[in-house]
Amino acid sequence: MNHSTQSNHHLQLGTLYVVSAPSGAGKTSLLKQLMTEVGGVETSISHTTRDERPGEKNGVDYHFVAKSEFETLIEQRAFFEYAEVFGNFYGTSKASIEQQLANGTDVILEIDWQGARQIREQLPESRSIFILPPSKEALRQRLDGRGQDEQTVIDKRMKAAQSEMSHFAEYDYLVINDDFDLAVSELKAILLAERQKLARQQQKHAQLLGNLLD
Amino acid sequence: MNHSTQSNHHLQLGTLYVVSAPSGAGKTSLLKQLMTEVGGVETSISHTTRDERPGEKNGVDYHFVAKSEFETLIEQRAFFEYAEVFGNFYGTSKASIEQQLANGTDVILEIDWQGARQIREQLPESRSIFILPPSKEALRQRLDGRGQDEQTVIDKRMKAAQSEMSHFAEYDYLVINDDFDLAVSELKAILLAERQKLARQQQKHAQLLGNLLD
Repeated sequence: MNHSTQSNHHLQLGTLYVVSAPSGAGKTSLLKQLMTEVGGVETSISHTTRDERPGEKNGVDYHFVAKSEFETLIEQRAFFEYAEVFGNFYGTSKASIEQQLANGTDVILEIDWQGARQIREQLPESRSIFILPPSKEALRQRLDGRGQDEQTVIDKRMKAAQSEMSHFAEYDYLVINDDFDLAVSELKAILLAERQKLARQQQKHAQLLGNLLD
Repeated sequence: MNHSTQSNHHLQLGTLYVVSAPSGAGKTSLLKQLMTEVGGVETSISHTTRDERPGEKNGVDYHFVAKSEFETLIEQRAFFEYAEVFGNFYGTSKASIEQQLANGTDVILEIDWQGARQIREQLPESRSIFILPPSKEALRQRLDGRGQDEQTVIDKRMKAAQSEMSHFAEYDYLVINDDFDLAVSELKAILLAERQKLARQQQKHAQLLGNLLD
């Protein structure tokens, strides 16, 4: 996968969370549950040139665009980052994330370590979270869900997972998905605590803070 | 109040929280409730030369020491900071806080903005929280609890409170005590989220993290 970077950002009210995990760590289920428990947080919807699959909705799962349109967006520097995977392009639109953040919404961006690194460079005020499985054995089991895959296939998945996990130390927060509910509550605490940070509170309560010192 | 600083620190597992607030913000009640809801957190017990009051316990409310002993501790650079208030000395012992932190316990230190500033300089990995009342009017009411104090006395208290509050922007987190339960849950989120930070998790889960990449 090759990631390319595009330009800079604006002042914002919400916080952008970059969340990475190896396959099998349970990231998607955790984030889904998190968003039912915490308001004011949305996922970022990527642009892609790959075909829409049955059950997927344009504008919900992805923004499905033609390759020519994607190329125009690249030229317009419309992406924080984009990547090519097996001949298909995936991109993170600056405009849509900036719009969400400006509304005071927290935004969750699920992306791999390379994309995370590029977001971090362009949005240093973003926060990054790495989700880990509780053990290598648990991960192997999760990657062999149906118990029917060949050993070499599982080995390959394990290798890819370990390659992704080798970057955990680049992240602000680590969450270990051993007990599902506990992991959700930890993610929840991260989002809620970040909202108490000085800069967020100064934006949210400017009038109150002025009144107190008046 | 004059604060004086003493020397440096060690590696630690727990997080030191410096918590400041003006009188009337409800800090003590909030922290008391917080500690019933979150485990692994203790308050720091200050040293003081003032007399023990009825109901107070040595080693629980304060470490009560003679002035000569306090002066020896100053000479030994035993304090992160100390201050003289109305002729009595108050000090924050390095040894006891470092012991608590080394046990993996989070420590809460209630201190004013001047003390907070000195802790921040010596322990940059500490976190600071400022607790604010929801409005000037609410604060005035809280400072006039029994409704029997003279206007000039309340004015003086308000002025002191505003002087303390004028330093809120030096803190990492702001918590506004409007709804008590909400404020407690916000403090709780801060403590829990800080435990998910990379450095804390690397200390806590060193073995697990090694195993995953092995």
